[in-house]
Amino acid sequence: MNGTTPAPFTADDHRDRMARAVRQAAEAGLAGLLVAPGPDLTWLTGYTPTAETERLTLLVLAPGRDPVLVVPTLEAPDAERAPGAPALTLRDWTDGKDPYAATADLLDPAGRYGISDNTWALHLLGLQSALPGTSYASVTEALPMLRAVKDPAELALLAAAGAAADAAFEEIRTVPFAGRRESDVAADLAALLLRYGHSRVDFTIVAAGPNGADPHHEAGDRVIAHGDMVVLDFGGLKDGYGSDTSRTVHVGEPTDEERRVHDLVRAAQEAGFRAVRPGAACQDVDRAARAVIADAGHGEHFIHRTGHGIGVTTHEPPYMVEGEEQPLVPGMCFSVEPGVYLPGRFGVRIEDIVAVTGDGGRRLNNTPRDMVIVD
Amino acid sequence: MNGTTPAPFTADDHRDRMARAVRQAAEAGLAGLLVAPGPDLTWLTGYTPTAETERLTLLVLAPGRDPVLVVPTLEAPDAERAPGAPALTLRDWTDGKDPYAATADLLDPAGRYGISDNTWALHLLGLQSALPGTSYASVTEALPMLRAVKDPAELALLAAAGAAADAAFEEIRTVPFAGRRESDVAADLAALLLRYGHSRVDFTIVAAGPNGADPHHEAGDRVIAHGDMVVLDFGGLKDGYGSDTSRTVHVGEPTDEERRVHDLVRAAQEAGFRAVRPGAACQDVDRAARAVIADAGHGEHFIHRTGHGIGVTTHEPPYMVEGEEQPLVPGMCFSVEPGVYLPGRFGVRIEDIVAVTGDGGRRLNNTPRDMVIVD
Repeated sequence: MNGTTPAPFTADDHRDRMARAVRQAAEAGLAGLLVAPGPDLTWLTGYTPTAETERLTLLVLAPGRDPVLVVPTLEAPDAERAPGAPALTLRDWTDGKDPYAATADLLDPAGRYGISDNTWALHLLGLQSALPGTSYASVTEALPMLRAVKDPAELALLAAAGAAADAAFEEIRTVPFAGRRESDVAADLAALLLRYGHSRVDFTIVAAGPNGADPHHEAGDRVIAHGDMVVLDFGGLKDGYGSDTSRTVHVGEPTDEERRVHDLVRAAQEAGFRAVRPGAACQDVDRAARAVIADAGHGEHFIHRTGHGIGVTTHEPPYMVEGEEQPLVPGMCFSVEPGVYLPGRFGVRIEDIVAVTGDGGRRLNNTPRDMVIVD
Repeated sequence: MNGTTPAPFTADDHRDRMARAVRQAAEAGLAGLLVAPGPDLTWLTGYTPTAETERLTLLVLAPGRDPVLVVPTLEAPDAERAPGAPALTLRDWTDGKDPYAATADLLDPAGRYGISDNTWALHLLGLQSALPGTSYASVTEALPMLRAVKDPAELALLAAAGAAADAAFEEIRTVPFAGRRESDVAADLAALLLRYGHSRVDFTIVAAGPNGADPHHEAGDRVIAHGDMVVLDFGGLKDGYGSDTSRTVHVGEPTDEERRVHDLVRAAQEAGFRAVRPGAACQDVDRAARAVIADAGHGEHFIHRTGHGIGVTTHEPPYMVEGEEQPLVPGMCFSVEPGVYLPGRFGVRIEDIVAVTGDGGRRLNNTPRDMVIVD
């Protein structure tokens, strides 16, 4: 849908990323990294197969050897066209052969490997069976920050995706809400994200009235009514990098209570944002936002963590959650999205993507955070 | 996109499926089945979460206990609305807690479990770590035929999806090909699939000229020319069940060689179809189609297996491949799709979905299999 934009990263970029990943794996005491199709593979190699299937595709990274991509024979031509292919050796295997046996000689039979989180259990079991002496840690457990610190080119792409999402919000606030179904507004939102350059829409939550009290309600048949609070939470990928923003609008004038809850969430979001600075822990962002809501007596109504990372996916480490002591580093990029959910009544969530800078945070979403009144 | 069609299966259907799965697991010597979001979970429970993420959602099936669905707290309201929810006990866990610990007491600490193929390695490692005495087999390895035999309602849905894909082909053959990009025709195909009732398009391969020699080429910027052979391979989901069909068309009159290769693939497809009957092995279908092509001296140009199952996904067991001795059973449904690929020149593939009946096979795709000439 956005096929005219050139791939922003070169074989050298991918070579550097793979070299860095190998270094970090060695430092973590790993014999290497095994990466199946998904965001880690996309980021490391620029290769994204058409589909994730039962056919094994696996990048093998290990110190002292060139990266090898094991691929099904019939997908090899696609893999050869990936931006990172010049930095890879391809090893293909044919239907009917055992792909784990074809991979085994690339691995240390007693090694401990990092394996991408979303690798299918089928493949992990195949490797464990072919090489019973190997052991595994998920990449997120072993190298949680592998993709977390974005370089300037990545930050520029994330900022552009955020700006496109903001443009979509500025336009959606002008459409009629009352009398239309949530799903109609969601379709408008999806079309706007595409129009402003997204290639993929991951979610367009439109949660009106009591539906807003369910943080993961998407969009349904409910006809939006005058007097509804409406949570909008939408994002996707633009040029390979993610957007994710939430605003809560109101159809017509809100009640005093609705305004009070919205102001509270806005204050919590501001507190979370202000807690962003190099050296603070991820959990400090969560604590700062949560304290505002808890102090107002709504602690039990904030039922999710405060944020998640964003990059080549719309949802990845680092997580802004109690217990996450990882210090913030300039270049990290994540959501700050507290909410208050009153079951059976309404919900409010306000979310910006925030990049860590040398001395604080920079918001990549900049639409109004005060309550927007819609028709 | 097709939200007005009611869910075709009830809580009782899902209860039956789960009971059958537990029985089969016990017969296979397993302590139970663990099912993460994906086609197995959709089929067993009717529940398909918004996204597959690092947050654990896991169905635990074991003999002698009611099915339990472990879900993140904030997704519990969605899960409660699933068609199979009345047949389930929900157990939710909150961000910051250990979901594997929350699951462990549901499992036999020394049990061997079937685990859905596409369960994330992250989750399998979490379970292996929480319960070091457990062992695992992929569902496809342990119960490859779990979803393979479709009931009459499922077959009706697959036939309807096939008919919709056929309608899309009948219309795409009338559009102009020459002078347009592959991606333009692919966009037309996707729009037609949606217009004829698909809710999701999984792939629309349009591979012209030499691109047709790559079985997994999708659709690119190549401008289709007069004289091009064009492989069309498209499918998706309609009312939750899959379509997948291929036809190879020609822009203007073909050469004698092109016609010969097309006739050969057509004969191979026919031979594969005729090999379908209860009690034959999956590999017999592959052998029958492959023999025709090999006998004509093109064995090395048929570089993939002959077919794959279809159901709630467009790509699943059973596989029609050498070495697969599973006998065919009435109700099984799969593709028969031989091809010949001449590198740098052109390719031909012809594919129908075929259901196994009491005395042979029934094609769910019925558009012309002789070469269609397009403009």
